[in-house]
Parts: sequence; C-alpha cells; structure tokens
Amino acid sequence: MKTPVNLTVGGRFRMLLAYDGTDFAGWAKQPGLRTVQSELLKEMQVIFGKTKDDFGMRVAGRTDAGVHADAQVIHVDLSDAQVKRIGRSTDVAGRLTALLPDDIHIYTFERAPEGFDARFSATSRRYIYRIADGQSHKAPKLARYALYFARPLDVAKMDEAAQALLGLNDFGAFCKQRDGATTIRDLKKIKVSRTGGANGIIEVELTADAFCHNMCRSIVGALIKVGDGKFVRGNLTALLKSAKRAHGYKTVEPHGLTLMEITYPVNSKLASQALLAKDTRSLDDN
Amino acid sequence: MKTPVNLTVGGRFRMLLAYDGTDFAGWAKQPGLRTVQSELLKEMQVIFGKTKDDFGMRVAGRTDAGVHADAQVIHVDLSDAQVKRIGRSTDVAGRLTALLPDDIHIYTFERAPEGFDARFSATSRRYIYRIADGQSHKAPKLARYALYFARPLDVAKMDEAAQALLGLNDFGAFCKQRDGATTIRDLKKIKVSRTGGANGIIEVELTADAFCHNMCRSIVGALIKVGDGKFVRGNLTALLKSAKRAHGYKTVEPHGLTLMEITYPVNSKLASQALLAKDTRSLDDN
Repeated sequence: MKTPVNLTVGGRFRMLLAYDGTDFAGWAKQPGLRTVQSELLKEMQVIFGKTKDDFGMRVAGRTDAGVHADAQVIHVDLSDAQVKRIGRSTDVAGRLTALLPDDIHIYTFERAPEGFDARFSATSRRYIYRIADGQSHKAPKLARYALYFARPLDVAKMDEAAQALLGLNDFGAFCKQRDGATTIRDLKKIKVSRTGGANGIIEVELTADAFCHNMCRSIVGALIKVGDGKFVRGNLTALLKSAKRAHGYKTVEPHGLTLMEITYPVNSKLASQALLAKDTRSLDDN
Repeated sequence: MKTPVNLTVGGRFRMLLAYDGTDFAGWAKQPGLRTVQSELLKEMQVIFGKTKDDFGMRVAGRTDAGVHADAQVIHVDLSDAQVKRIGRSTDVAGRLTALLPDDIHIYTFERAPEGFDARFSATSRRYIYRIADGQSHKAPKLARYALYFARPLDVAKMDEAAQALLGLNDFGAFCKQRDGATTIRDLKKIKVSRTGGANGIIEVELTADAFCHNMCRSIVGALIKVGDGKFVRGNLTALLKSAKRAHGYKTVEPHGLTLMEITYPVNSKLASQALLAKDTRSLDDN
C-alpha cells in the first residue's frame, strides 16, 4: 500500500493512516498532551523540516481521546522546498511509519487530486462501536477495543429501534452542543449485529455524512438501553423529536469506537462537495 | 462460562484464564515486577485471605514476559477455611475478574477432578505465533500481537520445512539450556499458514507435549529465515541433529506469541499422566 511520490513541486497531499487511540488524548494537537496529530507533526518535521503552520494539516474525522481509527484521512499542503526534501527515498508513508510509534501507521502518502479537502470533500464517515455483552466471550485482548456490558443485550431489538434514527434529522439530542454549529446530520445507515457466532461481540455500525460531537457514543448509549429492555423504539423517536440533549442514557466510553472509513466523491466533484460542506459545517465537528 | 462453586470443603481447584501479556513481566511472581501471577495472588487474597504458600498455585504454561494467553490453566489448593470464605456469592471467576485489571480475565473457577495437576497432567500445549510480513496489511491494533517483518515471506516453504521438526526429537538447538533439564520434546503438529486472504497475517501454530524455554520463538525465528529465502529445510534438519543452540537465526520477540490451549487426558488418566510428566520434566519449563 505504499505509493511513491516522485515530485519536486509543492501542493496538497493526501494521507491514509490508522491508530490505536488507547494512549492518545485524541486526534487534535493539544499542548502537553500526547495526541495523534502531535506525534505525526513531530515526525513529519524530521522529513520536511520545521513548520509553523502544521503543514496546513486537516483531518476527515476528528476523533476524541481513546477513539481508534482503522482508516483516517488527512491532507497537508507542502511548499516546493518541503517536497524537495523528500529526496530519492520516495516512500514517505514507510519512512513516517518507521519514525512513528507502533500505535500509528501511515498507509499512503500521495498527491491529492484537484479540489480535494480531507475534511470538507468527504461525503460520509463510517464508524463501528464494539460491545462485549453478557453473552460475549470476553478476552483481555478485546478490552482495549470493546465496551464491556455485564448483561446480555437483545441485538434484534437494538437493530430494529436504531432504524428510527435513519435519515436527515436534527440530532441535537445526541450531540454535545456547540454555539453556532448545526446538529442536523444525514444518518445514512445504522446496523446492529452480533459478529462471529452466539458468543461473538456486538457491532453497531453507523454511517453519516458527518457526525456531531459525541453523536456515535450517545446513540450507542441509547441503543444499549433498548437492548437491555429499558428503552423501546418510541424513546428514540421522542429523543430525536425533542432535539435536546437528554439525560436518560449514557454516552458510552470512547474505547469501543473505531473510525472505519471516509468516503469521497469522484474527483470531478471534490471541489464542489467541499464548498457545500464548508458552507454548512465549518464550525462543527466531523 | 461461569461455574458456580457451592462448596464448603477445601481441595484442589482448577482455573481457566486469559491475559494480554504486553504489560506483564511474564507469568511467574517476581519481586518488584508486575506479573500475571502477582496480580492474581493479590486479588485472590481479597477473597480467600492472606496466603504464605501462594495457594499452592501451579501453571500449565509458564509464559515469558510479553507472551499472551488466550486459555491458560492453573490449579490452586485451598483449605476448608479458605473455601468457606467464598460465601454465598459463588461466582469466584466473575468476582476475581472484577477485581483484576482489564488485561487478565478469569473464565472458570471449579473443583478439579481427582488427580488433576495443571502442569503435570497436561498432555499438550498449543501456541500460535503471529507475523505481519511485507505482504500483510499492518494495523496499529495488531502491533501488540504480531511480529512485524518488512519483507514478504514464502509461507508454503515455511510450512514444508517446518515438518522436518515433527515428532519426538531433542530440541536442544531451539532451547535455552537449563542444567539437568531434558530438551527432548514431542512436537505433535506444526503448521504455517496465511490467514484471512492475501493481505492477512501469518500464523505459526505449534503443538507439543511441552515446550522447553524459548522453543516456540526459536523455531519461528528459524522458519522466518526459510520464508525469507535464507534457510532451506536442510538447515532445520541439521540444527535439529546438532541438538546444540545455534546462532544462525534470531529468537523472535515475545509479543507475537499466544498460548492458545492446554489439553488434558480423560479424568481417569489425570494422575498417571502427572506421575509420568513429573518424572521426566520436573526441572524443566513447560
């Protein structure tokens, strides 16, 4: 998955990467904290030289502390001089991965197509939240990546109720509000299933154009109440209708959540999609 | 997987457990170090009271620092007074798991059948060593559980050469020698395969009556040389024949190794199997 970058002129570059979120205080650079972006910026400066503008880095899915990413996308803007520093060893992804700690892996580093913006060109984000319930075989190797829930959950009921949230809705009830930011999102798919047999873990898969802050984890918290027999589909409908942050359920812990995929349109639509998204969501989370 | 233990009399108990070896200095209790046994003894004393003899604990597979266990077996000998402390909440496995850190999980705690010895009654141990080679999709979540090897390995050649090691042999070439300990072991099965498609990881599965110290990791080190085109089957045969620790290959890192299974005979043979094994291997590793 390593793409050579035989270039001498600057421009926008696209990177595909993954990280184990356990030991990071989230994606975004924060003073004094170990974050994915800080680690990445540190090692990028080994290759491209010091930067004052963080290479104009922008991320598709700004994950919280503890959240993992199997396939995160970012872009950076490099000057001619920075690109020239790549030199003859053009496997930038491999070089960065070698410099980075084991909990970050860079898959590709390649010139971005015209009009590409990692955040604003994206048309959808897909996340999976993993739960080991009373019925799941629990294993220490799983504890970092799945929520442990003591009682068995009714997966069929969770999946049925979840469909009440589908479509373009105001997810205010499931979002940490930010001033001036819309909480209207298009939930394109939501699926709850038990994977790998009767003792397998539960996966909640969520795909939306974008997610507001805490949205995945709030929805999963409400769905767990359904699976545990304490909510029915009507509760979700009522929550959605109220569009106000409620306290009847928990926002679940971050470590069960993994960003799985970012989707982009065909190259000819990258720029127009970016304009559209920037217009409606520039103040929001992703 | 929780077995109630409604008992008031002492005796031998058998436990099935798992751990993520990453943050442990191995199984065995060692002063000042975080080991699986130390953590377990600490929490067992919460339930059973202080002990001076470590509850006579004995383990089936004494794993090294960094080695994981998906299914480890141990036994403990408890007095009447200790057993009485279990009280009415008989889910000892669940109580211990709740007390223990997330990287240890106790599946069962049950009275052992007559003649059972976790270590000496065992007839075989099965381990899997995982390798992410140049062809594998590498992921940060995998880095704790698989060895990273930069070049692609020829799995078919590894599997073919590995069969040269099968059977009852002196594995002196693949063992860290200990005075007075035999290095004769019966390697019952060895299989090298790539799992989960062309970009999957490589698994080396090894089953033997018992393994001497470093045996799995030494064999895997030699097999990697085969897969990398630097050894052929004949090199393994020659090593085996020499029965002397050689330096032509690496003992691979521990984090790729997981203890998968311990096998015991039918209950009527537990005691005789224990006598047999104790006779030949009391000074050895497992």
